[in-house]
Amino acid sequence: MQHPVIPALASLVGPAYVLTDPAATARYTTDWRRNFPGAALAVVRPGSTEEVARVVAACAEHRIALVAQGGNTGLVGGSTPDDSGTEVVLSLDRMTAVRRVDPLDNSMTLEAGCTVLAAQEVAAAAGRLFPLSLASEGSATVGGVVSTNAGGEQVLRYGNTRDLTLGLEVVLPDGRVLQALTALRKDNTGYDLKQLFIGSEGTLGIVTAATFKLFAPPRKVVTAWAALRDPQAAVGLLARLTEVVGERVTAFELIGREALSQVLAHATPGMRDPLATPCDWMVLFDVSETSAVLDPAPAVEAVLGDAMEAGEVLDAVVAASGRQAHELWALREHVPEAQRLHGASIKHDISVAVSRIPEFIETAGAALRARFPGIRIVCFGHVGDGNLHYNQSAPEGMPEADFRAQEEAVHEVVHGVTARLQGSISAEHGIGRLKQAALLQHKQPLALELMARIKRAIDPANTFNPGRLLPPDLH
Amino acid sequence: MQHPVIPALASLVGPAYVLTDPAATARYTTDWRRNFPGAALAVVRPGSTEEVARVVAACAEHRIALVAQGGNTGLVGGSTPDDSGTEVVLSLDRMTAVRRVDPLDNSMTLEAGCTVLAAQEVAAAAGRLFPLSLASEGSATVGGVVSTNAGGEQVLRYGNTRDLTLGLEVVLPDGRVLQALTALRKDNTGYDLKQLFIGSEGTLGIVTAATFKLFAPPRKVVTAWAALRDPQAAVGLLARLTEVVGERVTAFELIGREALSQVLAHATPGMRDPLATPCDWMVLFDVSETSAVLDPAPAVEAVLGDAMEAGEVLDAVVAASGRQAHELWALREHVPEAQRLHGASIKHDISVAVSRIPEFIETAGAALRARFPGIRIVCFGHVGDGNLHYNQSAPEGMPEADFRAQEEAVHEVVHGVTARLQGSISAEHGIGRLKQAALLQHKQPLALELMARIKRAIDPANTFNPGRLLPPDLH
Repeated sequence: MQHPVIPALASLVGPAYVLTDPAATARYTTDWRRNFPGAALAVVRPGSTEEVARVVAACAEHRIALVAQGGNTGLVGGSTPDDSGTEVVLSLDRMTAVRRVDPLDNSMTLEAGCTVLAAQEVAAAAGRLFPLSLASEGSATVGGVVSTNAGGEQVLRYGNTRDLTLGLEVVLPDGRVLQALTALRKDNTGYDLKQLFIGSEGTLGIVTAATFKLFAPPRKVVTAWAALRDPQAAVGLLARLTEVVGERVTAFELIGREALSQVLAHATPGMRDPLATPCDWMVLFDVSETSAVLDPAPAVEAVLGDAMEAGEVLDAVVAASGRQAHELWALREHVPEAQRLHGASIKHDISVAVSRIPEFIETAGAALRARFPGIRIVCFGHVGDGNLHYNQSAPEGMPEADFRAQEEAVHEVVHGVTARLQGSISAEHGIGRLKQAALLQHKQPLALELMARIKRAIDPANTFNPGRLLPPDLH
Repeated sequence: MQHPVIPALASLVGPAYVLTDPAATARYTTDWRRNFPGAALAVVRPGSTEEVARVVAACAEHRIALVAQGGNTGLVGGSTPDDSGTEVVLSLDRMTAVRRVDPLDNSMTLEAGCTVLAAQEVAAAAGRLFPLSLASEGSATVGGVVSTNAGGEQVLRYGNTRDLTLGLEVVLPDGRVLQALTALRKDNTGYDLKQLFIGSEGTLGIVTAATFKLFAPPRKVVTAWAALRDPQAAVGLLARLTEVVGERVTAFELIGREALSQVLAHATPGMRDPLATPCDWMVLFDVSETSAVLDPAPAVEAVLGDAMEAGEVLDAVVAASGRQAHELWALREHVPEAQRLHGASIKHDISVAVSRIPEFIETAGAALRARFPGIRIVCFGHVGDGNLHYNQSAPEGMPEADFRAQEEAVHEVVHGVTARLQGSISAEHGIGRLKQAALLQHKQPLALELMARIKRAIDPANTFNPGRLLPPDLH
């Protein structure tokens, strides 16, 4: 028998936008990595903030759990329903309006269902830069990146989504709408409530629209690929660059040999090692200049020259064209896909202070190799933010099942080293359902208690994304 | 008879650090502007986080209200006791240790009692910039600027204190210590708890230490003073500058004629109008360059030339030396003191979107002049952040008492225009006890309700700064 909330929802948003047929709901009910196959009571697709509010109120009345979903590109199972078939997915995918773009104020307001790519394009059309940039940007939505405080490749210069967010419109668990869509750069009238909803993974409110900062667009980007003596040289090169070109360093990505080897083993046409002599550690970086009249290229070349003279950089190439820059970045962006093609892998998304990156790589690598002989370490990521995607592939010839059986033990080693270095076990992917055990193990109990107190204060009935982020028994 | 908590506190921190003699407590019990004369049960000056925690626990046991205090430079009565003599002031002024400076990681950790000036000096000694800069920096403390989310003169480029804060150590109302002193740039392990304590004016926790971002120091600063056609030309000039020098615009301050006239009427030796022909509106701006090898000066001069050709800038001077730059800035920084010397004034600290600054000035000015003939408008401030200190002096010859009698009516006009333009009635000074009526009038009731729910969740006994920020009947 049909749950009575279904016709209620249909009357609120129109029957076409309440999906219950598993063929129609499938793309909403299982996460992108297919780690969490789920089932939904219904998938509801409201078309306006008012409809979202009514859907939330109706579900609150029936005490039905709501899972908000954007582009369903999350990596931790935070935005898909569990397999009980009792949760309703609230998809924001119809809310794609651009409400306002103000180039003079350097801000824009978009509805939650706009993709990050669309947001970039809206800004560019107004002669501005929306700097959030991540692999999933064609599908990931504005509401999703706010709810997860997404990072990506330009955090070093422009910050995380939190730093880019000026204001929010949020539907609360009782269906009321918090109007905080301000574009103000300064507003000290009480607690900054939007901070509660940024990065809380849909557990406190449903973001229906956001106002973002915009920036002057880059006029010139210098892209370079350098072979390094060791990871310490990566931190050293970043410091040298900052010394000479200031905050123009926009992206600074470390790439370990195993990562590049996997990319080259699964290369698409045109991909090749940019340098003649293979080495263990490389960086790819962008220095971008927003001034139309200043050129940082000679300064970047001078820095590379100095670092080579000091023996920290072994070889380097500066992209001579936009196409060559694109080819260098394609190598970096192909790493996750190459790793997928390469077989089973165990993944981590850790961060430490930038200055401790070399110590992390040294210590974690030694600990893993001692305990799991032959394990292959695929290390790459946003070293300028202290954030590494520090993944492992099976030793040559080990069956996948044997490797998988070691997953928890591998996590334990990597997260243990991370914790000893005061790092984070989830730098940018969040907690969702995937990382709750690690959260419980490594977060200060008092912090967990405060999080639970806030959850109860804002969502006392626990109907917004229950059991995600905060472990179920903490509510 | 002595309250039993006094000897308890003395045993925790030492009798020398528990002040009860009014002569000794006076500097802690009345705010800097002397708007809120107060009295304290005691002033306690703990020397460590552990001592703060013990003091808080002891006061919690006795249900005694605690008012945390840094440099006592706040403008809204948020950090001094009321006149009941029942509140304890917890001064952080003995906690001045520098815990860690890491130039490679661009971060530093300081205890709450360090002054902002000391923080700048610690950063500079490590070859880095701590960009927070405000008039009271010699007295204002790290804990104070975090608790109030202080802004200042370089927000345009570097953000408010919130944007500069990576991690916090906070004593909670029950005396437990939240350890969140991370230097991580990315950490998505649950709600970002530090955001709760930044800008909450001591109502949720007592900040005992903070970790801040550091930046590459400026190598060259171009300072210019320009006479403008009108306020619209200020916004236009900012856009022109951003177009050509990108995010190098570090400060961009509007100065109205009345503000400069008052400065010149109360000038210290050496102060003079930088330009030959007086005009109604001026800007003072800094373009700072962190690269050691690039020089933005020619670009700034070209922008000024273009704006003059367009008739937006009437005249301009670029400082030829650091001394001249200092003299230009002295004019701007002397405005509040000159206004004080000039007699009674009614003050506002508003913000609107940068693009709406001209509309605000036009509309608020017309409304004030219509209702209060002859009123003098002292308008200056951080126009690059949309933040104006929009103050009023009495009409020529009006007795101070008559002018003071109009204060609430003047606030109503100015805050009314601000609200109609979706602005903030407190851009950077906070709420404290001074602006609660305006907060109640202009904040969405749902936002106030959420703030109260959070306050109850974190400080259920309401002993941390009760009656500040949140109006007493909201708790």
